[in-house]
Amino acid sequence: MAKKKADGTGDRLLDALRVPAGPVDLSAYDTRATTGFEGTKDDGKLKLEELGAEVSDWQERLFAEGRKGGTRSVLLVLQGMDTSGKGGVIRHGAGLMDPQGLRITSFKAPTATEKRRGFLWRIRQALPGPGMIGIFDRSHYEDVLIARVRNLVAPPVWNRRYDQINEFEAELAESGVTVLKCFLHISADQQKERLEARLDDPTKYWKYNPGDIDEREFWPAYAEAYQAALENCNGPAAPWYVIPSDRKWYRNWAVTTLLLETLRDLNPEWPTADFDVEGEKARLATT
Amino acid sequence: MAKKKADGTGDRLLDALRVPAGPVDLSAYDTRATTGFEGTKDDGKLKLEELGAEVSDWQERLFAEGRKGGTRSVLLVLQGMDTSGKGGVIRHGAGLMDPQGLRITSFKAPTATEKRRGFLWRIRQALPGPGMIGIFDRSHYEDVLIARVRNLVAPPVWNRRYDQINEFEAELAESGVTVLKCFLHISADQQKERLEARLDDPTKYWKYNPGDIDEREFWPAYAEAYQAALENCNGPAAPWYVIPSDRKWYRNWAVTTLLLETLRDLNPEWPTADFDVEGEKARLATT
Repeated sequence: MAKKKADGTGDRLLDALRVPAGPVDLSAYDTRATTGFEGTKDDGKLKLEELGAEVSDWQERLFAEGRKGGTRSVLLVLQGMDTSGKGGVIRHGAGLMDPQGLRITSFKAPTATEKRRGFLWRIRQALPGPGMIGIFDRSHYEDVLIARVRNLVAPPVWNRRYDQINEFEAELAESGVTVLKCFLHISADQQKERLEARLDDPTKYWKYNPGDIDEREFWPAYAEAYQAALENCNGPAAPWYVIPSDRKWYRNWAVTTLLLETLRDLNPEWPTADFDVEGEKARLATT
Repeated sequence: MAKKKADGTGDRLLDALRVPAGPVDLSAYDTRATTGFEGTKDDGKLKLEELGAEVSDWQERLFAEGRKGGTRSVLLVLQGMDTSGKGGVIRHGAGLMDPQGLRITSFKAPTATEKRRGFLWRIRQALPGPGMIGIFDRSHYEDVLIARVRNLVAPPVWNRRYDQINEFEAELAESGVTVLKCFLHISADQQKERLEARLDDPTKYWKYNPGDIDEREFWPAYAEAYQAALENCNGPAAPWYVIPSDRKWYRNWAVTTLLLETLRDLNPEWPTADFDVEGEKARLATT
């Protein structure tokens, strides 16, 4: 399959959206940007569908490699405030791929047992196997986000976690897991609109949680915690990408494009035959 | 959403493909049939795509119900000889749905630990949670299929398993799991063609296993074992469906249609608000 650019700009979105090393100021990132994309909302939806064939092809190659002794996998980490669209990216982006090659885990508040085992234990349990694309809807980053903002653990505990995460992610990279960390960045106003939409639509009540409003009070503290996470855990083994997410269509296209570019970089080849092709043909003919 | 018929025949495919109680003779089932469908292969592919919107809508309703205290789920069990298309059904049928609401498990030969725990242990581990659609690519039926044909256990052991399976499936039904068991029925000639196709296409070598040819020798014994399973484990709690599967497009359409009809029967409603909608709107407005 031709490795054409996903968009017409000639640049890789991985380069355009990657968070540079150094201090991070989220207010400098435009949540309505459409970096790397030229066209309308309708174009964006169409372009996303068009990525389906190529991203599925790469996914199957990676899966095949994993079946034949390969150890590589991809882990897409989705983080963002409530309503930022982690579920939407999975539905519309990951939904383009074969569900057999996906391992999706949605992390809620840890149970007492999980807490006793250390914050990375349940994360390790959910890692993708060889050839798989793992997707985390929330992740170990919650342990330096809500845990920090809502004082779920003492400051020395969450403070130590940045290093622990960096060690963990370096280990992942060494063991063949390519980590793609996406922060879905929305504005506080956009979140308000989306919560209003949930309250206006009875088919969306189930997604609404009164606690979401309480969390809004802590918006500045979350921004600070996200900045710290993006700054402290942004090594070459697992860099962060900020996805402008006020426009849902752009967000879905952008994350899927990053995943596509990541798969192209891995460039998995179809496994060669580990049997005698002509001999098997002859044997089959006699059956 | 309108509960229109998936096809124009006016009959439910669930009724048309259900295996009647009593002795089962698989040779009486035409593997090339297109029961309940009128139209060409191209029509079939198009009709399958058209099921996507409705099946996704039902899936989301079921998922929402599960999030709000509901306990119901669906379990699609896929069985069939090698190349019958269990993976194809998941890719093209289940692939129409939101991967977040799917739990897919592919069962290989059991490990030593799994064997020690009894054949249903690993099956129970893989059951779908509330609101989920579970999919088994092979299942506990392997324990009365390959186990019987290849003498992996003594006859009294596999013989006892039919009752154990019936007890297990009755328990599932009582706990809210709707089980949909599909046997993807292909002819020995069709399998030969598909194995030839794998040997002719380097992008399919990874799917080929020389052992597949060895298994072909046991085709009549497998047919007998399938007949026994379909006959002995066909209670009202978990009936069997035989899917004519020589035509891939029909197979994909048929299984997806059965799943759609099953979801319609469950008829999950959007959960009502468990909070004060107007109060929350007012509270949100002040943030």
